[in-house]
Amino acid sequence: MRAYDLIRKKRDGGALTPAELRFLVQGATSGEIADEQLAAFLMAVFFRGLDLQAELPHWLEAMLRSGEVLDLSRIPGRKVDKHSTGGVGDKISLPLAPLAAVCGVKVPMVSGRGLGHTGGTLDKLESIPGFRVDLSAERFAAQVERLGVCLIGQTAQIAPADRKLYALRDATATVESVPLIASSILSKKLSEGIDALVLDVKVGRGAFMKTRKEARLLARTMVDLCKALGRECVALLTAMDEPLGSAVGNAVEVRESIDVLRNKGPKDVRELTLRLGVEMLLLAGVTPPQARPRLEAALADGSALRRFAELIEAQGGDPGVVDDPSRLPQPRCWREVRAPRSGKLAALDAGEVGLAAVELGAGRSRKEEAVDPAAGLLLRKKVGDEVRAGEGLAELYASSEARLDAGEARMRAAVAIAEAAPRRAPLVLERIA
Amino acid sequence: MRAYDLIRKKRDGGALTPAELRFLVQGATSGEIADEQLAAFLMAVFFRGLDLQAELPHWLEAMLRSGEVLDLSRIPGRKVDKHSTGGVGDKISLPLAPLAAVCGVKVPMVSGRGLGHTGGTLDKLESIPGFRVDLSAERFAAQVERLGVCLIGQTAQIAPADRKLYALRDATATVESVPLIASSILSKKLSEGIDALVLDVKVGRGAFMKTRKEARLLARTMVDLCKALGRECVALLTAMDEPLGSAVGNAVEVRESIDVLRNKGPKDVRELTLRLGVEMLLLAGVTPPQARPRLEAALADGSALRRFAELIEAQGGDPGVVDDPSRLPQPRCWREVRAPRSGKLAALDAGEVGLAAVELGAGRSRKEEAVDPAAGLLLRKKVGDEVRAGEGLAELYASSEARLDAGEARMRAAVAIAEAAPRRAPLVLERIA
Repeated sequence: MRAYDLIRKKRDGGALTPAELRFLVQGATSGEIADEQLAAFLMAVFFRGLDLQAELPHWLEAMLRSGEVLDLSRIPGRKVDKHSTGGVGDKISLPLAPLAAVCGVKVPMVSGRGLGHTGGTLDKLESIPGFRVDLSAERFAAQVERLGVCLIGQTAQIAPADRKLYALRDATATVESVPLIASSILSKKLSEGIDALVLDVKVGRGAFMKTRKEARLLARTMVDLCKALGRECVALLTAMDEPLGSAVGNAVEVRESIDVLRNKGPKDVRELTLRLGVEMLLLAGVTPPQARPRLEAALADGSALRRFAELIEAQGGDPGVVDDPSRLPQPRCWREVRAPRSGKLAALDAGEVGLAAVELGAGRSRKEEAVDPAAGLLLRKKVGDEVRAGEGLAELYASSEARLDAGEARMRAAVAIAEAAPRRAPLVLERIA
Repeated sequence: MRAYDLIRKKRDGGALTPAELRFLVQGATSGEIADEQLAAFLMAVFFRGLDLQAELPHWLEAMLRSGEVLDLSRIPGRKVDKHSTGGVGDKISLPLAPLAAVCGVKVPMVSGRGLGHTGGTLDKLESIPGFRVDLSAERFAAQVERLGVCLIGQTAQIAPADRKLYALRDATATVESVPLIASSILSKKLSEGIDALVLDVKVGRGAFMKTRKEARLLARTMVDLCKALGRECVALLTAMDEPLGSAVGNAVEVRESIDVLRNKGPKDVRELTLRLGVEMLLLAGVTPPQARPRLEAALADGSALRRFAELIEAQGGDPGVVDDPSRLPQPRCWREVRAPRSGKLAALDAGEVGLAAVELGAGRSRKEEAVDPAAGLLLRKKVGDEVRAGEGLAELYASSEARLDAGEARMRAAVAIAEAAPRRAPLVLERIA
């Protein structure tokens, strides 16, 4: 078998056989297929796709087998994870994981870091003093068994083919391909040893998928692909035109997550946590009438918050932050962004707010960069709110005045004040199962 | 400027600016743009093309400027070359170059080697004992001035961007793209310092372009592109379903070329030499009524043959081969392929005949391979000829019985004998100017 012939076949719209797809994935992992050949193949896939029935399951299977697939079958209970395609202010994993765990779901969660305008769960967790995300597979499994939840980063053993292919896609403008996105996400998620997966597919200005049609296609592809590999899967399409909640950054988002676990916090964050939680519980076998009340009770009685504290402690972090969030990193400088005029807040572009957070130091524009755990911003107004000229729209946090300047400029670009605000879109747009 | 953004722009169907195209070509030449990025760009071009007006002339210009462009303006007379897209038994350059030169055209010809089923002019020339194709630019220009003709190989200084890009295309299944083929050919040809170019675009089973539509598109693209860069250009679309002439190989094709220059040889080789010669003479300013008679006279009076001998001598070869072709390399073994049954020769697949020649040792399947100058074959029958069972269809030449076995198997696959033969297609299908 020669890589050349497979590139050519895909280029001409042919469907590759399972053996051919395995050859490519194995060659990518071992380095035996040259980067230029892989890049040409990926671009051909961008144009020609991978068939959802005939090709994609085998491609994903090969990616999974390129590394370690955890076997959590000895742990009793259903193992269910949640994955978000990435947004701004999307801290849902933090309250959701301990909440679902306390309701009886086993949550083995492998997360990523932030890049560009989107934040990453690992960066947020690491803003908790002492918190470790680099646990071994053994400790990961043991903690899932004991606490029902563990939150770690991708290990070198998980889906090395994806690491290789993603780096190439990132350099060659072949990221935006539905079959490649779907197989990349699932190669990592299914390596966790889960039985089922809930997907939060973001749509809008702050999301990778700008339109509902694109998001629906990605959701449908991932749900079907998951099922083809014998795992249950449900996707929610959710709005990402303005940021989720008020906090955007790392320590600030942990603080907001603690608020939600205290049965408070912004309505949208609480609601999405519950909606995704319901899907996780249903996939774990809880009956529909019981799911939401059980989650609400765990927020109301403090058991979810306690589970979060136990989780932090188990992973080397300071559980005291749960009762005293001032123990989280504090910024050196802050500034208020004030409304230039009165009216209604008509838009708060999540993409721009995300870039403002990057300017403040909370995110990265390149993979190698470090993040500032204390940097970020807190929105005082959301779309639809009445604002008066001079009133505070947001508070910015950073390590220097220069960063505040840069963040403020971006933040101002995100805001539109008008006579009237558009009608708010619903938070959950669609459910795909 | 970042390669990533340009790949993305082309991927999404945008037209690149002249500066962006230069950036890519310069980055390819210098090595500053990674191979995987170039490969992804080339595949995006395969799908999206390069605009004939807005992009392709600038892309070609940048490729030309990546290396040395010969300036032959001090040599009096019009400098005109001929290029063939490659066929089987296509030795036309050998009789045509001295013939056009003796009729007053200056012919600075840079040729290539054979690859796959097609032969290469350089390999054929090198079967003449002592013949050198690696002359310096200075010797090349001096010989064009003195003899009116010089036949060399591509130097390291000519279009290095094309060498880099072609190697990548060859590995990544992005050869078959009309704008990339056109710019690759012309980047080499226009570096020769020519005023005008005649193109022989082959169509059929033994050609890269299998259909007239594809060939027409390539011809039209090259003619227009040449004109956009200020050079005159005419293309002939010519048939390549069966091999041209009787000889396929290296020394055997030199021998057949000498026959043509002796005013003999196969009708099709003679005719195509004259047709292409007429186009060269017209581009050099000869009036239409004079062109063909002048060429025919130079074949009849032996002056074209003498010029070929002078050319061979000037490039270090043995000019005696012109009078005594037995001084060309002789094969160690030979075999006759006999007709399995009686009938009409209905097909002689040029692609298969070309591969038979490769098996015999006359060609290469990989660039690094050496060719056997004495290997090849001589067709005794052409399409439309009557054959009797047991009668010789072809003679095969090689260095071993094993190679004869392999060549014979391929040769048999090329032949079809039937009750009736199809009507012969004309040699020249179309003229595009």
